[in-house]
Amino acid sequence: MKQSSTLIPTLREVPADAEIKSHQLLLRAGFIRQIASGVYSYLPLGNRVLKKVEAIVREEMDNIGAVELLMPTLQPAELWQETGRWYSYGAELMRMNDRHERRFALGPTHEEVITSLVRDEIKSYKRLPLALYQIQTKFRDEKRPRFGLLRGREFVMKDAYSFHTSQESLDEMYQKMVQAYTNIFSRLGLNFRAVIADSGAIGGKDTHEFMVLSEIGEDTIAYSDTSDYAANIEMAEVVTTYEKSNEALQELTKINTGNHKTIEEVATFLQVTREKLIKSLLFVVDEEYVLVLVRGDHEVNDIKVKNLLNATSVELASPEQTNEVMGCPVGNVGPIGAKVKIIADYGVQSIVNGICGANALEIHYTGVNPTRDFSVDQYGDIRFIQEGDPSPDGKGRILFAKGIEVGHVFKLGTRYSEAMNAVYLDENGRSQTMIMGCYGIGISRVLTAVAEQLADDKGLIWPSSITPYDVHVIVVNMKDEAQKNAGLNLYDKLKQERYDILLDDRQERAGVKFADSDLIGIPVRVVVGKRVSEGIVEVKIRKTGETIELPIEQLLSELPNVIK
Amino acid sequence: MKQSSTLIPTLREVPADAEIKSHQLLLRAGFIRQIASGVYSYLPLGNRVLKKVEAIVREEMDNIGAVELLMPTLQPAELWQETGRWYSYGAELMRMNDRHERRFALGPTHEEVITSLVRDEIKSYKRLPLALYQIQTKFRDEKRPRFGLLRGREFVMKDAYSFHTSQESLDEMYQKMVQAYTNIFSRLGLNFRAVIADSGAIGGKDTHEFMVLSEIGEDTIAYSDTSDYAANIEMAEVVTTYEKSNEALQELTKINTGNHKTIEEVATFLQVTREKLIKSLLFVVDEEYVLVLVRGDHEVNDIKVKNLLNATSVELASPEQTNEVMGCPVGNVGPIGAKVKIIADYGVQSIVNGICGANALEIHYTGVNPTRDFSVDQYGDIRFIQEGDPSPDGKGRILFAKGIEVGHVFKLGTRYSEAMNAVYLDENGRSQTMIMGCYGIGISRVLTAVAEQLADDKGLIWPSSITPYDVHVIVVNMKDEAQKNAGLNLYDKLKQERYDILLDDRQERAGVKFADSDLIGIPVRVVVGKRVSEGIVEVKIRKTGETIELPIEQLLSELPNVIK
Repeated sequence: MKQSSTLIPTLREVPADAEIKSHQLLLRAGFIRQIASGVYSYLPLGNRVLKKVEAIVREEMDNIGAVELLMPTLQPAELWQETGRWYSYGAELMRMNDRHERRFALGPTHEEVITSLVRDEIKSYKRLPLALYQIQTKFRDEKRPRFGLLRGREFVMKDAYSFHTSQESLDEMYQKMVQAYTNIFSRLGLNFRAVIADSGAIGGKDTHEFMVLSEIGEDTIAYSDTSDYAANIEMAEVVTTYEKSNEALQELTKINTGNHKTIEEVATFLQVTREKLIKSLLFVVDEEYVLVLVRGDHEVNDIKVKNLLNATSVELASPEQTNEVMGCPVGNVGPIGAKVKIIADYGVQSIVNGICGANALEIHYTGVNPTRDFSVDQYGDIRFIQEGDPSPDGKGRILFAKGIEVGHVFKLGTRYSEAMNAVYLDENGRSQTMIMGCYGIGISRVLTAVAEQLADDKGLIWPSSITPYDVHVIVVNMKDEAQKNAGLNLYDKLKQERYDILLDDRQERAGVKFADSDLIGIPVRVVVGKRVSEGIVEVKIRKTGETIELPIEQLLSELPNVIK
Repeated sequence: MKQSSTLIPTLREVPADAEIKSHQLLLRAGFIRQIASGVYSYLPLGNRVLKKVEAIVREEMDNIGAVELLMPTLQPAELWQETGRWYSYGAELMRMNDRHERRFALGPTHEEVITSLVRDEIKSYKRLPLALYQIQTKFRDEKRPRFGLLRGREFVMKDAYSFHTSQESLDEMYQKMVQAYTNIFSRLGLNFRAVIADSGAIGGKDTHEFMVLSEIGEDTIAYSDTSDYAANIEMAEVVTTYEKSNEALQELTKINTGNHKTIEEVATFLQVTREKLIKSLLFVVDEEYVLVLVRGDHEVNDIKVKNLLNATSVELASPEQTNEVMGCPVGNVGPIGAKVKIIADYGVQSIVNGICGANALEIHYTGVNPTRDFSVDQYGDIRFIQEGDPSPDGKGRILFAKGIEVGHVFKLGTRYSEAMNAVYLDENGRSQTMIMGCYGIGISRVLTAVAEQLADDKGLIWPSSITPYDVHVIVVNMKDEAQKNAGLNLYDKLKQERYDILLDDRQERAGVKFADSDLIGIPVRVVVGKRVSEGIVEVKIRKTGETIELPIEQLLSELPNVIK
């Protein structure tokens, strides 16, 4: 493509409303333009990257036997009413009336449509398992769209759905999907982790989020420094073994800690490390009060509390509730003499001569020893993992990172098939509910992830798998006939060899052309300049800045190596 | 793809609500399913055809230098208000409010978005001409969606827009687009015509519709039996030369025609051919009464009347108006003694001893001769063309056909660029308004057109360019190990050779498999049956029904010929 015939409106200035690097660069390099809040046009370069990402996703989906189809954007309200999501999805579901006042959702996801389709068309176990996917524009009315393509209101997704007769069959497909996603994000050149995630209220079991490591990410990931273990910090299991000090047991003693309330304040006041303190927090668990203990340097993870107690709802008690139940302010709560159920993290078990609140204003205990001084109804892993903890898979230590979610795999189970009566006849002619999985990739979001992770201060840097063009050929001076002709010849020749070429044939200064080229970030640049009269062109690698001069007739034979 | 792992839900019965062949077959063969009125899912086979059509369109667009981008579905109302179409587009424009009560249209077309984009990004003549296109889902709230994909509410379109500094540049692009469209529809195997169409109220000049000839079409096309001339019948120029009889002129005579009012009745009553009659109709043209004359066997074309008189509005006068102005009922109106402006079709000029109304109840004139008996203010081509008329390009005679519109090219001129102030600076630094063209193809509609034109009574027949799979391999009996193994081997081998293969590996009766195969319409079928034990398979051409038996090892070398 000749640059004079396409639309690549680069900007010198950083757009005022773009907060993060990827958003700034995608705007400045002319890949996208905003049409409305959270709604973008993909200009020619952005569209090319999008289509290349789609092609990779398609290939890997096809490889695992998933079958592509295309469902509509307009989804009748009746389908969403069957699952109840018409009411529960909230303001993020874009809705509209047609001319006959029938209600529709603009699809943010397609569980309802695909379940209704498969329910109507599949009647026998013989036609299962089945995995279907589509690549399609989705809609979600984000309250605060931001970060460009990262949190938009109209975006491109690959969404896949699978249907099974058994949990084993679902497990098998889930593993295939995890592998396909791993292939996809590897081919995209991303540093990512498959992160164990919370299956939330949907009721499924296994779920992984594919997170690209990036400081702009909205989620924190706990990952191993040596293995591929990674989990959402809410989900990461703590397998730390705590050593119990063999110091002599002290006597249980009440002391006045005055106005010192927080863990930090009490530890400083008593000149001990926070590990000595027993953090005691009153929770309301399914309408029952439960005292939850963790070590002073740890944080309670309420999802783990919920799972340990097999509860539906876990909430911290209010200061008023705490005062009423424990007879003291929040800062003085402790397990000794408490009249409520007590659960404690494993870390508490090993505390020797610890400190805890005494359930009286301005009073703490010292010399506290679990079992001797109070009993615990149940020990468990109920704290957040921390950096430095051993990785749950036994390999290495945990580090934290922020992540951008680019993919999600989820064992739905029968959440949708039950609500929508998607059943089949088994080998014995008995009606059974289908078991489902769903699997998404944020196609347009990938552009942001790649731009965040691979760009430098001069501009974007595309991996060769999804670069808008393979090679950027720059004619330094279009008024110089020798340069112009050599550039046009090279363009034709490379196109014949099936390379995607962007030719800068504009009447612009060399400085503008080089700056634009750095901004756009095509991995290989060929500069046709003064030395073309001697038959020499310059090849530059965008990522490393490495430059070599080559006789023009060697370029074709060298190019495959350079691109690698 | 193995048929056991995909979703091809064929139907034996004709679905009750499908009126036309293509709709019935696309449903029965499992290519599409309706989700809501005019809203469809493309099942795996339908999606494959869609993607192949898209690829052909993309290739031909790229070949003429058009550049792909992707604009959003959600279009802010403000943009549509700039051109006034927010108000004029009517109920077909789907509209919605976001969570902040901002109004959006779901794009049925993208003139506003692209014009705003180009207006903001292109400032200089140096960046023009520019041709941009996208392939995207569009929305139009049809009052009565019908005929499956033909008149849907959500559909896939290719829409292109071009921007120019001169009419010549637009003309050049328009010609390129016409050529690209011709290539596209030829590659799709369609019998089509580029039809001269009415540019309507938009104010552009040239416009062609690409019509696939089909009896279910909603428009009538006048086309030449020898050349590629074709026009919407409203637009087709009449170049007939009329011979004037040299019979002796009769005297003008009043006769009582009683209750005989219509052309047919009067001609029969007087025992003459309709050619002898002068059909006289009173019109209201821009608030002035005009008497319009055509030969009795011709029909007035009001678009031609409008163009001849350079008028804004042309309407037939009501019977009351006619009675008031002419003093008689509609059936007795005539030019002799009329006090209004008279225009006549060229055909009237040659009438000798004709018959017309006498502007009195139950009275006609015979022996009427134009010029001698009445004068005409202006002669012109103001009738509809008829079958048998000479083609306006001088080649052959006109025939009529019905057509399905699959494409449209249109010289927009400055309709949008003026309304939205899309200007550039010319060589002299002066601000000029961009000149635009727009060019659409109904991608999903192509499926209907192909199905209508190429199917037979057994099912669909796909041209090799867009067939969902190249070859349908059918294992007659999956319980026969020899057949099963030979089928699976063949499947692998053909896939290695890069053929797209559908393998019928289902546990179904042979009859079901063959009927489904005919219905689906893959052009080449390879049947792995009993004779595979002797190394023989059967190859069948879907279109001709031609069958040959081949040694399995010859299949690979023969297949390219067979597919051709």
